[in-house]
Amino acid sequence: MNYSNKLNIQIKKNNSLLCIGLDPELTKLPLSICQKEYPQYEFNKAIIDATHDIVAAYKPNSAFYESFGDNGIYQLKLTCDYIRETYPDIPIILDAKRADIGNTNKGYASFAYEYLQADAITLSPYLGSEALKPFLENPDKGNIILCKTSNTGGGEFQNLEINGKSLYQYVAEKVAHEWNTLGNCSLVVGATYPEELKRVRQIVGDMTLLVPGIGAQGGDVEKTIKAGLNSQNAGLLINSSRGIIFASAGDDFAERAKEEATKLRDEINKYR
Amino acid sequence: MNYSNKLNIQIKKNNSLLCIGLDPELTKLPLSICQKEYPQYEFNKAIIDATHDIVAAYKPNSAFYESFGDNGIYQLKLTCDYIRETYPDIPIILDAKRADIGNTNKGYASFAYEYLQADAITLSPYLGSEALKPFLENPDKGNIILCKTSNTGGGEFQNLEINGKSLYQYVAEKVAHEWNTLGNCSLVVGATYPEELKRVRQIVGDMTLLVPGIGAQGGDVEKTIKAGLNSQNAGLLINSSRGIIFASAGDDFAERAKEEATKLRDEINKYR
Repeated sequence: MNYSNKLNIQIKKNNSLLCIGLDPELTKLPLSICQKEYPQYEFNKAIIDATHDIVAAYKPNSAFYESFGDNGIYQLKLTCDYIRETYPDIPIILDAKRADIGNTNKGYASFAYEYLQADAITLSPYLGSEALKPFLENPDKGNIILCKTSNTGGGEFQNLEINGKSLYQYVAEKVAHEWNTLGNCSLVVGATYPEELKRVRQIVGDMTLLVPGIGAQGGDVEKTIKAGLNSQNAGLLINSSRGIIFASAGDDFAERAKEEATKLRDEINKYR
Repeated sequence: MNYSNKLNIQIKKNNSLLCIGLDPELTKLPLSICQKEYPQYEFNKAIIDATHDIVAAYKPNSAFYESFGDNGIYQLKLTCDYIRETYPDIPIILDAKRADIGNTNKGYASFAYEYLQADAITLSPYLGSEALKPFLENPDKGNIILCKTSNTGGGEFQNLEINGKSLYQYVAEKVAHEWNTLGNCSLVVGATYPEELKRVRQIVGDMTLLVPGIGAQGGDVEKTIKAGLNSQNAGLLINSSRGIIFASAGDDFAERAKEEATKLRDEINKYR
């Protein structure tokens, strides 16, 4: 089943637009977890077991694993394997923001889809669609392209004016109208920019948008949902990482993560 | 010693502007190498031993290692360790084209500088300098920002006009005039675009530019050197990967790589 269908089924099954970012910074893990052989994996496993019936998707960010080299990458794989084997309906989004020339992108595609067997990947648009062909030509996997990122300085290039519109709008148009011939494209738009989210929604029709920036980064749930919903009252995947997975630094972290995830899922649904 | 000084010393020592891309695609390695436990590492080791007195730098591209998951990442580490321990004067550039929000970039910086102990990394500009702070604030390491990439479709966004100049020129201006306060920035400009290389040189003064696209991608050596040299008759790091490392598919690959590397280094120097 392709990424888009898998995601839509999971959204309905758990009545949830919530994506949980599996970003296990080692310094924030409870001591009891840090003592285990694969602490990032053990932490993720507990979070996944506690939240699998609340989420629409999981999104591990590669940086937090690469930080520990081959051992971290192995823990990322253990995490993806665990999700796939235990909760096979839940899509896995590899947040990696990759992009290189075409020949090289084949290596990144192998990492995401052969080694990790993820369902989708985040990609940077800077090299253009020709470079991203190894991703875009795959009808089964999701390509989630950076459009308007959540960070405070994201506008340095993304807000540059090109013929009366901003670069991020131009990216949204290109992806929606030219790159998405197989229906396998999506965009990243930060919850910290609800006005821009609204403009992107006007450009892309019902396309699903991945929206980080809720919680620790300061995005507002109500504004985000109202600005971003599509005509089907969905089309948003609202990501939270730190606000959920680090809700407690103690041994009750998974239980507290479940509470925070439930709260956020329900708050999102309140505005749908 | 910081990256820039290390690179300049190596350029003089080997009288070379040549950077060799260590991109060991498994299907292209000789059979005798494929049978070893760590084929990518063994291949690289032979290439490095054969070319260490010809190069200015080595540039492994992370994608070719990630392709094999944790095992590939370990071979990338073995490769970096080997260069550092055996030929400590030669700078290692991690070609990874990374960029995320600031908090997350710390993970990528750990990967490059703690785990691999590289000297520089390639970065994507799309999220802006605020996001790249964990890299830009480090005075010892090199930040090589994508500007005008070598791929045929690179212009899709990079050539967009903003107030009379192209996005890639805008990136070059920002990096040269605002991001480079610590003198630790550089740019990627493809050899496949000599006119654009010339324009970037006019913007950035004597800054060193990393220039891929010679060889398999079709960039012309003479045009590239003439367009890109700085006022010191240097300021270019000309990368070749496939043209050198896969010069032979047989057991003489290292010897043939040495020949091709010598030929290219000398051809580059002919036009300086």
